[in-house]
Parts: sequence; C-alpha cells; structure tokens
Amino acid sequence: MKSEKESNVSWRGIFQQGSLIVLMSLLLVGGCAVTRDPLPSWNDGPNKRAILGFVASVTTPGSVNFVPAEERIATFDNDGTLWSEQPMYFQLIFALDRVKELAPQHPEWQEKQPFKAALEGDLKTVFSSGMHGLLELVMETHSGMTTEEFTQIVKDWLARAKHPRFNRPYNECVYEPMLELLAYLRANGFKTFIVSGGDIEFMRAWTEQVYGIEPEQVVGSSIKTKFEMRDGKPVLVRLPEINLIDKEEKPVGINQHIGRRPIAAFGNSDGDLQMLQWTAAGDGLNLMVYIHHTDAEREWAYDRESHIGRLDKGLDEANAKGWTVVDMKKDWKVIYPFQMK
Amino acid sequence: MKSEKESNVSWRGIFQQGSLIVLMSLLLVGGCAVTRDPLPSWNDGPNKRAILGFVASVTTPGSVNFVPAEERIATFDNDGTLWSEQPMYFQLIFALDRVKELAPQHPEWQEKQPFKAALEGDLKTVFSSGMHGLLELVMETHSGMTTEEFTQIVKDWLARAKHPRFNRPYNECVYEPMLELLAYLRANGFKTFIVSGGDIEFMRAWTEQVYGIEPEQVVGSSIKTKFEMRDGKPVLVRLPEINLIDKEEKPVGINQHIGRRPIAAFGNSDGDLQMLQWTAAGDGLNLMVYIHHTDAEREWAYDRESHIGRLDKGLDEANAKGWTVVDMKKDWKVIYPFQMK
Repeated sequence: MKSEKESNVSWRGIFQQGSLIVLMSLLLVGGCAVTRDPLPSWNDGPNKRAILGFVASVTTPGSVNFVPAEERIATFDNDGTLWSEQPMYFQLIFALDRVKELAPQHPEWQEKQPFKAALEGDLKTVFSSGMHGLLELVMETHSGMTTEEFTQIVKDWLARAKHPRFNRPYNECVYEPMLELLAYLRANGFKTFIVSGGDIEFMRAWTEQVYGIEPEQVVGSSIKTKFEMRDGKPVLVRLPEINLIDKEEKPVGINQHIGRRPIAAFGNSDGDLQMLQWTAAGDGLNLMVYIHHTDAEREWAYDRESHIGRLDKGLDEANAKGWTVVDMKKDWKVIYPFQMK
Repeated sequence: MKSEKESNVSWRGIFQQGSLIVLMSLLLVGGCAVTRDPLPSWNDGPNKRAILGFVASVTTPGSVNFVPAEERIATFDNDGTLWSEQPMYFQLIFALDRVKELAPQHPEWQEKQPFKAALEGDLKTVFSSGMHGLLELVMETHSGMTTEEFTQIVKDWLARAKHPRFNRPYNECVYEPMLELLAYLRANGFKTFIVSGGDIEFMRAWTEQVYGIEPEQVVGSSIKTKFEMRDGKPVLVRLPEINLIDKEEKPVGINQHIGRRPIAAFGNSDGDLQMLQWTAAGDGLNLMVYIHHTDAEREWAYDRESHIGRLDKGLDEANAKGWTVVDMKKDWKVIYPFQMK
C-alpha cells in the first residue's frame, strides 16, 4: 500500500501539471489571437486599419457600434472585386467557348451576329453588338439544359479552360487578400454574400469551394427555370429568359434575397454604387469599400475610361464621402493565391 | 508559513472537488441528452419516430446516410404548415383590413369590385372574383410604400388584429409541435427555410421572432421593388407587380434562392406537392412530410374538398410513396403555444 504522502504528491503532480498545461494553452491562444495578422496579404495603412477597426467596433460587446451576429451582413460584388474581370468577364469567355462547342448544332450561327463574329474570334464585332447582342449570346449558351446539367458544364469548363495571361484556371484568378478578408469576416460572425451581375448558377458551381460562400449566399442575375417531369423525375429546365442584377437592381436583389441591409459592402465599379449607397444609408456604423484597379503590372489598371468595370461616378462619391478605396498596387502584397511563396 | 502537508491536502481537496463537479456535470448533461424529448408536444407513434429516425440517420457520422451540415436544408410551407390558414389566409385578412383603412383615399373602390365587396364585408363576392380579383386586392394594399414602411404596417397590424376564433394575435396561431420541430432540426445542424406563396416581406416582419427563421431563409411571393433616391437617401418602393410562388414555382424558388435541394420538406396542400417531389428526387435519404388537418375540435379538419389548402393529389401521392402524413389530431398533444399549461 502506498503512503498517503506519496499519493498526495502524485495527485498534486497531476494537478499542477494540468494547471501548467492549461495556463500555457491560454497564453498561447491569447498570444496568437493578439499577434496573428488576420489579413497577412494586406500592407499596413489606412485602408487595412479601416477594415480592422470597423470589424473590431461592430463585434465588441458593449461597444456603442456593436451589431448582433445575425445582422452582420457583408455583400461582395464578384467580377473585379473577388476575381479578375480582364481581358473580359470570365463568364463571357465561357459563353464564347460554348458558342464554338454548340456551333455544329446551330448552322444558322454562321450567318447570324453576334454568333458569326464569336465563331470567327472577332471580339470587336461581338462587343459592338452591345448589351442586346451580348445577352443573346449568354441566353443561347446558358439555356436549354437542366440546372444540374448546366452546373456540370461549368465545372467541366473550369477544369480545362485557362486564363490567357496567367495560364491558370479562371477560378484560381481570385484575389488572395479578398479570400483572407472573407475568412476574417466569417470568423467574426459575419455572413458573406456575393451580389453580382453574373449568372447565379455559373457562380454557385465553384464559389463554395473557392470562396467558402455557400449557394444560398450567392445573389446574381438569373435564368428563368421551368419545372418539368422527365420519366417521372422532376427537373428544372433553363429558359432563354434572364433577370439581370446590376446597379439599381443590386439593392433590389439584396432586399429580395437577404431581406436585411448589409453593414459592409465591397465593389469595384459604378455598377456597385447603389449597393454601397444602400449600405451607407443604414443605421449605425457601416463600411463601404471600393477595390481600385491600380496595378497594371501584377493585374490591370483601369477606372474612369474602362468599358469593363468602369469606376467613375463611384470614385467621385467614394472620395466625397470618405469611403475606403483600396489601392491594389499599394495595399496588396500579393494578388493571386498561385503567386504565394 | 503553512506546512507542506496542509498545503497538499488543500490542493488535493480542490482537485478532487473539481473532478467530482466535472463528473457530475458530465453525468447530468449525458443523462439529459439521452432522456430529454426534443419533440415533447408530439405523441409517440410512427410519424414522430420517422422524423427522429431520419434526423438521427443523416446526422450520425459514419452512417451510410450521413449528410454534412451545410447540405442539411429543410424547407417549410407556411400557411397551414407552420400557422393556421382558416377561416382564410391570414395575409388576405390583412389585405381586407388594409382596404378598409385605405378606403378614404380611394373613393373609386365604393363602386369597383372586389374592393366594394371587401368594404361591405361580402366575402362571398370577394372570393368569387377569383385569383385575378384577389391578386388585385393584394397588390393594391401591399404596394405604393417603401419596404421599411410596409414592414412597419405589418408589425402594427399584428400588434392589434386578433384571430376571430381564438382572439389571439395571428402570429400566436402557430403550431407548437412545428416550433419544436424547427428548433430540433436547427439544433441538429439543419438550416430551416420557409418556402411559401405568401408575401416575403409580410412574413419577414415576424418570422425571425416567432419561428427563429432569419429573413434570408424566407422564400416567398414577392412584390417588385424599385430603387429610388428620396432627399438623397435611397429607398426601395413597392410596385403593384407580383411574382407568385406556388406549386411548380416552389422548386424554382428553392433553386433560385437556396441553390441546393432540400433533404427534408414539409407542406400541407397540393400547392406543396412539387416541393415534396423535388425533395424526394434527391440522392440519399430524404424526408417528405404532409401536415394533415384532421382536428375540427382544436383546429380545423379539411383536405380534398377544401378551397383553402386543398390536399387531394398530394394525399394520394403521399400514401402511394410512403411519405409521412402527420395526423394533427392523433400526433399532436397541443396545437398552439397559448394552449400550453
């Protein structure tokens, strides 16, 4: 039989060791929380500090700006805000690739614009067909199949198509600093939504995997679908009819889909201005951010004169109202994840 | 200075006391988890067991039917599934009350149907105006204001209007067993969505407080809105144009809004049949539930012949396919929360 003293020492040993481990863990966790930079790809500066300060303010219990987690809605434009949009919208490249694939089934396209130009690779003529022509291209190539078939078509395209400049799949041409920002916001109780002019199903095929944004948190333009029974199994068939989300329709889409006003909104063009205005008009503290494409070397530099992602009125309003304008060249250490060391 | 021995005893005492508390807590928590009934208002029987069994099966790691949390989507019809829909849809009662309130500003309604009949309380004529007349009633009374004004109008109405049979606010005429079911599903990692023919903003005004269902998880018919600047402040104005969600449009709305197929769906009428079919056509285990109104004494009894919430084709298909048909009279110990002891 062991002596009581021996037994005591043993108990004490275990307990003290336990305490020490707990204490060390706390110090370690505490230390990490204080010192780990949640946005390592962002250079220090007023823009990074504005974002960190906003998040700290709305998440600190007792703060006058505190916002309960369920109301922490952050909305993000996609093209030019989360991934690149040059040399043209990636979804349009997808549509042009689809025209080539589908051409054998559409002999009439050989003579019909803008399909003829698309088949000849004459982008100038394609673009000169204007919004009407581009929408026709999109509708013809994005409809006629079931929703599940379309999702598979998008996934197959992403698996083989490469960005002409970076020779990478298009869904790798996403911004590393924005991936960090999305994760940081979610870690602070935010719900992150995409609000984009892009086709909602085109995005949902990959946004969960790439951005961590779930399908129900994607708002976008949509193709009308029709419920049908095929061999006793229900399917949704995509029709050549589109509901566009852009400019004024962004707040409309936010209200329709989310039903709450964002407290933070991120865009890069005049098409996002109304979303930022809608966010700014909310009660309490809010954060409006424009991503300004200033880096011709690592990405592209464009704003007031660009046909894609024009930022003109929005830049004026951001400057006048003191919104955050992220300078990609100055604020971002790296652009794409594949450039990380 | 205390002796080492004294100090030892003290350490040991604290540690042993600590262990005991931890042990007792574990036993207590463990015991509760095993014995507490998550659906106390449901009588034991095959329907309750089907629901509990389904949830256990899809949430047990390693189970062949396991579904990751992000895919645990459950959709609920509202009228007749989560709250009562007799003597008529509550939103229609709201519309009729609004007609009376707005009548002084609409002298033309004195001669125009179905407004004239609504003002005279002649419900038979109101209903005989058919879908077209009812939609006109809804649109005229649900549009012309901003989204925020409309939400306030609904809240004010709920604060003063009373159900004619129970003399309770309409949003207290919700089903206690379904409240338990919603909470139980969420506690098991499900996302609970409403998919209803009702106006989305009419529901969002109270669904979070009553059901715990957040605005972004409400799918419904919607009034078109328009972005406008009023005194430099953006507003969304409700237009007299409606996008109805019913029958075939329920799967369409689910796909559009949620972007994932439910694994569990709950309805009470033929208008929910396509939603249940869409759910049943998914891969893996799924749960299709009809709430059958069988209790004329405590609520109402109606199905195949009813003008409101007709359940005819749906009942046949449920029986043929072995879906769960909840018998309100037999399966539910209590109907409304205000009847709880």
